[in-house]
Amino acid sequence: MSKTLSLTAFVMNTASHIVHGTWRDPRGKQRDFNDLSLWTSLAKELEDGGFDTIFLADVVGLYGDYEGGWEAHVRNGLQVPSNDPFTLASAIAATTERLGVAVTAGVFQQPPYNFARQISTLDHLSRGRVAWNIVTGYLENGFRNYGYEGMLPHDERYDTAEEYLDVLYKLWEGSWDDEALKKDRKTGIYADPAHVHKIHHESKHYKVEGPHLVSPSPQRTPLLFQAGASTRGKAFAAKHAEAIFINTPSPKVAKSLIAEVREIAVENGRNGEDIQFFQGQSFVIGETEEEAQKKAKELDEITDHKMMIAHIGGGMGIDFGKWDLDTPIEDIETEGVRGIFNWIKQSVEGRKPTLRDVADHHGKSTRIVGTPEQIADRLEEWLDAGVSGINVINAFIPSSYTEFIEKVVPVLEERGLLKEREAKPETLRGRLFGQDRLSERHPAAKYRGAFGGVRS
Amino acid sequence: MSKTLSLTAFVMNTASHIVHGTWRDPRGKQRDFNDLSLWTSLAKELEDGGFDTIFLADVVGLYGDYEGGWEAHVRNGLQVPSNDPFTLASAIAATTERLGVAVTAGVFQQPPYNFARQISTLDHLSRGRVAWNIVTGYLENGFRNYGYEGMLPHDERYDTAEEYLDVLYKLWEGSWDDEALKKDRKTGIYADPAHVHKIHHESKHYKVEGPHLVSPSPQRTPLLFQAGASTRGKAFAAKHAEAIFINTPSPKVAKSLIAEVREIAVENGRNGEDIQFFQGQSFVIGETEEEAQKKAKELDEITDHKMMIAHIGGGMGIDFGKWDLDTPIEDIETEGVRGIFNWIKQSVEGRKPTLRDVADHHGKSTRIVGTPEQIADRLEEWLDAGVSGINVINAFIPSSYTEFIEKVVPVLEERGLLKEREAKPETLRGRLFGQDRLSERHPAAKYRGAFGGVRS
Repeated sequence: MSKTLSLTAFVMNTASHIVHGTWRDPRGKQRDFNDLSLWTSLAKELEDGGFDTIFLADVVGLYGDYEGGWEAHVRNGLQVPSNDPFTLASAIAATTERLGVAVTAGVFQQPPYNFARQISTLDHLSRGRVAWNIVTGYLENGFRNYGYEGMLPHDERYDTAEEYLDVLYKLWEGSWDDEALKKDRKTGIYADPAHVHKIHHESKHYKVEGPHLVSPSPQRTPLLFQAGASTRGKAFAAKHAEAIFINTPSPKVAKSLIAEVREIAVENGRNGEDIQFFQGQSFVIGETEEEAQKKAKELDEITDHKMMIAHIGGGMGIDFGKWDLDTPIEDIETEGVRGIFNWIKQSVEGRKPTLRDVADHHGKSTRIVGTPEQIADRLEEWLDAGVSGINVINAFIPSSYTEFIEKVVPVLEERGLLKEREAKPETLRGRLFGQDRLSERHPAAKYRGAFGGVRS
Repeated sequence: MSKTLSLTAFVMNTASHIVHGTWRDPRGKQRDFNDLSLWTSLAKELEDGGFDTIFLADVVGLYGDYEGGWEAHVRNGLQVPSNDPFTLASAIAATTERLGVAVTAGVFQQPPYNFARQISTLDHLSRGRVAWNIVTGYLENGFRNYGYEGMLPHDERYDTAEEYLDVLYKLWEGSWDDEALKKDRKTGIYADPAHVHKIHHESKHYKVEGPHLVSPSPQRTPLLFQAGASTRGKAFAAKHAEAIFINTPSPKVAKSLIAEVREIAVENGRNGEDIQFFQGQSFVIGETEEEAQKKAKELDEITDHKMMIAHIGGGMGIDFGKWDLDTPIEDIETEGVRGIFNWIKQSVEGRKPTLRDVADHHGKSTRIVGTPEQIADRLEEWLDAGVSGINVINAFIPSSYTEFIEKVVPVLEERGLLKEREAKPETLRGRLFGQDRLSERHPAAKYRGAFGGVRS
């Protein structure tokens, strides 16, 4: 079990990511997300302030309809417009020294050969600070932007993802041996061709000859992030992920989820500790508890509850705009609502939860309101439950992070809850796992040296 | 006709781009191209030194075989390994203020929706300094890395490119109206949905619903570069390109080519001046002509002639490794050699040109050897022929550029051949054409306002 917490900043290259409506507040500089300096100054602040990673979320399409269309999404900036996170990641990597940069990308967004090369290039230029958040997509419009008629069935998405990863692993781990690169001025040998291999991949969806064009980068395979929550999703994450982003309502639930996923990981030949878990968490910080509660109330007042509901429903393919916010959830006869109901009834006791409760709850189930000391106490509970990191959700960029860094980080440091920095910059995997390269127990490791004989 | 010359630095994110063998020389820091600082320091030097643009060349596969395989390419670093130029472009944009960044990308590398978003994001974060060099691919291995059995036929590549551009133009020019983005804190309107449109594109190869996720960037469509030399390639460039990279042997040939392409442009409803031409050119600079000639001889001695031939043949799909370097070209019975023959016989008089002549000629036909004043004289001849810019080819990164900036740029400035800088940074198109957005005569312009009625 990890003895320290790794801090990750959960952001998206858009105006309204999670806590909707806050872009209207002057503290919310995310309104100007097109301006690179917002991100580079945030990244430097995070790097200097004790954060290990900036996590760039993304979706590549509109959320499902609300009130019969997508006008509300555009009007309120609900993750549209949004900019490509990979492009931003490269700019951030170029302007920082130590910060890990986690980038979200779907397996249907780019051919694997191209994606592998972009990631490897980013790993070189960041000196090994890249993580990839593997997503399989859940928005109809997202698929229709990429040539599909609509969303692929859930299991087909994961099957395709397995194939996609297979190509990437071959390129990242198998195409170049460690001893390939010589750069030898005297002999004139730049790389030894006996150690560079085509991969000749052929599967249902992909045919890729290789070799990888990029020589081995510091991490080779980027640190692999995932957030699958379904049964298939958990199995996928347990097999491939090194870091899993969770949004559990309590340390107790987290503990049981962690045990479950690690058990599947062990069945896949991995060790439980090969996977670390990052809990999503937002914070309202006060000098006193009273002040914190007052600030929380003020934040709730500027939060756009209709957009909170549009976001949740839009991700599930349910248009909650058809019902009034005070409609009890159990009165909504729509497939998929039962899941929400189970999730929300834990926090609403003695009455029927409504859509308003769902909106109210979203982003608050994992919100801690209190003094820095109270927050540190609560974070220790997550640590004790087996969580390795906290993915810090913001209401305002950058001030949510500025406040956390100024007020909470010193308390965490005083308690020894943050890992001290090495004198020299590390790779992201080195920082989290103590080694630059993927564990030998990971499925990708089987491709190391696997193409030795191929010269055609 | 342009009265000043725009300077572009022609580089590739690899060790051995054009003048092969020079990475072995200590002046050739391109040996360490994985190191970002090589590129960011070069970019700053170019920006401060009077260059308008850094041009990142690329190929996404191995060149065709030499001596029966691709071992020689790897051994000598012939454009392998190489890193993704887009990723580097973003890092360069983040660390410069004024330099244009031209990135090469093939139309089969990414789905158009994804590519459009990456480019638009880059145009935002660079504040409008992006150019895209449109390529259609010419390497068998390149296509086999992207799921194809081999290279598509020439005309099919251009047909696909036409479709691809059509999708991009719809996303860049038509999906968002200029008045869409409000970011209004008071009303809470981030963007006006009446001015954001799906594109509902359907063609033979592409089906893209839209809308574009990115709000209009400073240039919308990036500055469009192209280098097509075939009949179809010229027609394509005359229709779409705003800047064309040429490698003509003389100002006279350039003048005639420029007239030819501009005539086709006019047939397409454009003005001749809507297209600017950039001549590729390398330089060997001496305080005296004698010194320059001595340096040129030294450079020829460290140049790897076999790799020069491997590069030329590999791009044509001909393995010249089967013949001795002293074989007369006319003795080589291979389709496609006639083109080289015509090209080389202009510079070799009184004897039969050999493969060695081809190697020797490559990168030298457009090489100027002389004093800064002599070089400036020659560049004036190019300017008089109608060329708008010089794409400066290097032997050594960064020293070829350092030398050019220290010695030639001051002479060009003294003669008023370089355009003075505006006080405020400009967009790249603004710098070259005096306007941020594509000309209304460009085929992309027809999509402006074309999707006004679509709300589905």
